[in-house]
Amino acid sequence: MKRIALLVFAAATAACVTVSMPFTAGGADDEGSPVYGVKIPAGFREWSLINVAHEAADLNDFRVVLGNAVAMKAFQDGTLPFPDGTFIARLAWKYVPSEENNAVFGRAQSFVTGAPTNLEFMVKDSKKYAASGGWGFGQFTNGKPDDEALHKTCFPCHQPAIRHDLVFTRYAPSP
Amino acid sequence: MKRIALLVFAAATAACVTVSMPFTAGGADDEGSPVYGVKIPAGFREWSLINVAHEAADLNDFRVVLGNAVAMKAFQDGTLPFPDGTFIARLAWKYVPSEENNAVFGRAQSFVTGAPTNLEFMVKDSKKYAASGGWGFGQFTNGKPDDEALHKTCFPCHQPAIRHDLVFTRYAPSP
Repeated sequence: MKRIALLVFAAATAACVTVSMPFTAGGADDEGSPVYGVKIPAGFREWSLINVAHEAADLNDFRVVLGNAVAMKAFQDGTLPFPDGTFIARLAWKYVPSEENNAVFGRAQSFVTGAPTNLEFMVKDSKKYAASGGWGFGQFTNGKPDDEALHKTCFPCHQPAIRHDLVFTRYAPSP
Repeated sequence: MKRIALLVFAAATAACVTVSMPFTAGGADDEGSPVYGVKIPAGFREWSLINVAHEAADLNDFRVVLGNAVAMKAFQDGTLPFPDGTFIARLAWKYVPSEENNAVFGRAQSFVTGAPTNLEFMVKDSKKYAASGGWGFGQFTNGKPDDEALHKTCFPCHQPAIRHDLVFTRYAPSP
């Protein structure tokens, strides 16, 4: 039972590291995400870098977390809870070896992004999303929102990050 | 001899994936990088994401490549050579396991950024840097430019990317 719970939890966590979007219009997903009605925010790819991670095992991905200007100020100032208007995006790609880079380095050591996998968002709106800690969530695959069952796991799975306002990612200080 | 050349090449490539900065003022490095006079551009952390990679072995880092607006347009349009005013930044951090994330996933699978290592830039100015393919390069550790010997390796080490205007990184399409 515990093992099953962990697996469900892990799958959901893999899915929902992040979003929603009540403020601006955006992508091709007219309805937005189930449960939260989050849409893909226009211009998210121009947001700033918060951090990057690699999940091995089944996920085997690179994941980059970006934030809009409200998010970046909150991360840099250490503001908790995050203010309304915070948007956080999580972009993911398969983790693949780079033959081209390995040739340059002279040995097999380089891993780069392969095919895109999915896209996630968290958006803070403390009134609209009062029932989920103030956050709306959305996960999109090929520009379309994933299903309701997945979105029901987002809020519970973010509970381990409760002391950081449900956000797993920390800001990576610049070198 | 070939092995030594490869090692030198690998070390230099590790160092110089990227920059310089004749256009805007910035960090604490008043002189800029040796050979090129590249300085840390103000606001580079707000630039947009181009791609991410992991180098294993001795480097054992995460490296994120960001670009200014000129760079992003060129990457997205596939413009070659890159136009004057292109700035590319490479930020790197040690690659470390995350006990916190592993607890959430229920197994050891998560790797995140550790201590920052160094910061690199490439800037395109086809007149100023005519002798190095139009690119100026700079690498900075703790906000200070690294030494001249290192900077002399940047241009030769980028030669394998000659067909992509000396830029190794490609644009990662959004999920």
